[in-house]
Amino acid sequence: MKRYSFPDQSQYEEIVCRPRLETAAIEKKVEPILAAVKEQGDVALREFTQRFDGVLLESLWVSESEISDASAQLAPELCDAIRIARKNIESFHRSQIALDAKVETMPGVYCWRRSIPLERVGFYVPGGSAPLFSTALMMAVPAVIAGCQDIVVCTPPGRDGKINPAILFTLSELGITRIMKVGGAQAIAALAYGTESIAAVQKIFGPGNQYVTVAKQLVSRERVAIDMPAGPSEVAVIADESADPGFVAADLLAQAEHGSDSQVLLVSTSEQLLNAVEGELEKQLATLPRSSFAREALASSNFVQVRSLQDGFALINHYAPEHLIILTKNPSQDASQVINAGSVFLGQFSPESVGDYASGTNHILPTNGYAACLSGVSLDSFVRKVTFQELTQAGLVGIGDAVQLMARAEGLEGHARAVSIRLGGKDV
Amino acid sequence: MKRYSFPDQSQYEEIVCRPRLETAAIEKKVEPILAAVKEQGDVALREFTQRFDGVLLESLWVSESEISDASAQLAPELCDAIRIARKNIESFHRSQIALDAKVETMPGVYCWRRSIPLERVGFYVPGGSAPLFSTALMMAVPAVIAGCQDIVVCTPPGRDGKINPAILFTLSELGITRIMKVGGAQAIAALAYGTESIAAVQKIFGPGNQYVTVAKQLVSRERVAIDMPAGPSEVAVIADESADPGFVAADLLAQAEHGSDSQVLLVSTSEQLLNAVEGELEKQLATLPRSSFAREALASSNFVQVRSLQDGFALINHYAPEHLIILTKNPSQDASQVINAGSVFLGQFSPESVGDYASGTNHILPTNGYAACLSGVSLDSFVRKVTFQELTQAGLVGIGDAVQLMARAEGLEGHARAVSIRLGGKDV
Repeated sequence: MKRYSFPDQSQYEEIVCRPRLETAAIEKKVEPILAAVKEQGDVALREFTQRFDGVLLESLWVSESEISDASAQLAPELCDAIRIARKNIESFHRSQIALDAKVETMPGVYCWRRSIPLERVGFYVPGGSAPLFSTALMMAVPAVIAGCQDIVVCTPPGRDGKINPAILFTLSELGITRIMKVGGAQAIAALAYGTESIAAVQKIFGPGNQYVTVAKQLVSRERVAIDMPAGPSEVAVIADESADPGFVAADLLAQAEHGSDSQVLLVSTSEQLLNAVEGELEKQLATLPRSSFAREALASSNFVQVRSLQDGFALINHYAPEHLIILTKNPSQDASQVINAGSVFLGQFSPESVGDYASGTNHILPTNGYAACLSGVSLDSFVRKVTFQELTQAGLVGIGDAVQLMARAEGLEGHARAVSIRLGGKDV
Repeated sequence: MKRYSFPDQSQYEEIVCRPRLETAAIEKKVEPILAAVKEQGDVALREFTQRFDGVLLESLWVSESEISDASAQLAPELCDAIRIARKNIESFHRSQIALDAKVETMPGVYCWRRSIPLERVGFYVPGGSAPLFSTALMMAVPAVIAGCQDIVVCTPPGRDGKINPAILFTLSELGITRIMKVGGAQAIAALAYGTESIAAVQKIFGPGNQYVTVAKQLVSRERVAIDMPAGPSEVAVIADESADPGFVAADLLAQAEHGSDSQVLLVSTSEQLLNAVEGELEKQLATLPRSSFAREALASSNFVQVRSLQDGFALINHYAPEHLIILTKNPSQDASQVINAGSVFLGQFSPESVGDYASGTNHILPTNGYAACLSGVSLDSFVRKVTFQELTQAGLVGIGDAVQLMARAEGLEGHARAVSIRLGGKDV
């Protein structure tokens, strides 16, 4: 890791610098995959799955029996844990249901919004070394609350043609059974364009590798929405001398174990704490299964000593981390200094992993600096808010002059006449 | 225009087809502009403004005296109209302020969201043949309500180096005085990257020509958010035999006058109405100032006769129009059939132009089919919703087992340990 002491603002850019994803080369590989699925549909999906996942599938779809057999393959305790997480995520996302009132903006002019669920949504659930059934939960729970009708999931099969049973159990608990054994850019193409066996969706959710990320970016130019641009996962921890170095180290490692490109930033007012965390990291790394990933990620991490928490939050806000953990004496009070972050964890009993799995917040969050301008996934992500307006005759009379004056000042006479014709030809 | 009678679903694609924007050629022109502004800053802005707008500017910024002189150049009635519109837009957007409650998802586990305003936002206001001060209003009002601190506006100057006074008056009424005389792709580059005289913004709002649209798409890959992909404006009208053909024609023309690429769709259960509207169009076109634009737009419009309003709404939902006007006997009741639309206008006293200017709803809306997956601009567009969580010790004890079980099932031991270390090393 790299240590900084009391950096001035001119060094902030260097500290918060993320690795730049070189997408051009990946685009070149992804584009023909998208084109092939667009043209050849299921045939292409089968071919790519054989080539990239090493399995020739008879059916692209997970069967009913595979779904019903899934729970038997899981420890009952894990099933219960998933149910607890589901319940908490439901509680929090239900609280986001918007009750938009009808507003009478002036007499006889009524305006309101209606949240209308997206009809067809697609989820990408990564397979591979870490089967992210928790991510399936983070997409499925709000989609079901929102009332999305057609939910289809793509996830890459193993070489045995199977899907991890925890993913199947999680989805089936939410009533989602349309699960396609397709991964990578070809999965994104199937969701975006549709094939013989899958209807094109309106929005694609979920993280993935670089191919999936680039494929999502490319299809988002073609009338498909995506949840957000994805990048490597990130955590920033801000801590004062009151923080437990063991907790801090554990939080940094929980992030660093994701992959060698995981981003870790520790900011503290206490040099002693920074030193103690370094020691704790070595100790905890010794027994961490994914320590090789974690060591690589830590090698490019930054530890920063600041003069004050205010300076620390200035740096953190400049970084705009996906996750922010506040381990200070007064975390609730300090939280008011947060401007740019995806999800924030307050105090010593709130490790990031509770939010990753079960506290109730969503773990699909903006990375790569996008926390400065985008929000994480929420119930809003699964609806459109359509505006409506209805005017009474008196309402149109009341507003009509203003509309006509403005329309004519913009040189749009036709806009003015759409009003005046309704007022018996009364121009202003 | 093209007439369809009782089309079956296989014809829907043809009816709703939009012209495809060929962006590759435009990208080739826009990319060097973006690069030049990134490298040379204000010098490039001056050069491009001289080349494209035909004026060599001394100062890129609108001066204090230009702003203070603006209102004197406007009719007092227009100033009042703008103030009425502002008040209505404020009322409606204020009703969107979210009061997100703290939720105790399980004992001792507290989750909440906080809406945090974007600090730095940039608006693009088109100049040219129709100076869209109304668009300035639609961006400025919610930005000010949200609490955005730094608001900067780019708008192209005329050959005299001036900005339309209605744009200046509208912005200054909202307290926005940082207005740069720059248009086109170079304006988007200035907002996205910053220059010597302008700080990079977090999000760019506003419509523009194809160069502006493509520039926004390109910079959105570089940590800048944009309001939405833009396309030509659209209206669909659904009407039964009760509709006034003159009103329908006026509404179609109000859309068609925007430009030759404007999209117009009329759907009706009544052949008589369709015929009558055609006659009305000719009559009203005769005296419409922008009739040449309108005629071109109407030439590629579609008139569709359907067997029932239900069939009509199926087609409309397939089209997903930016604007939808419902001119039927029971518009409020029929509105429940709307799934895909940006903004909806109910009944004979609710022409689209009231929403374009003054009813209170926002007129920056998804086009080109994106109404099926995106919402229009609202107060939400100017904030990030950051999630927070805080657990008590008892809360972590209660949720800890579930988190550890799920983390280990995903192969992420470090995530589990960030919990167990806080529970005195208690693993499950």
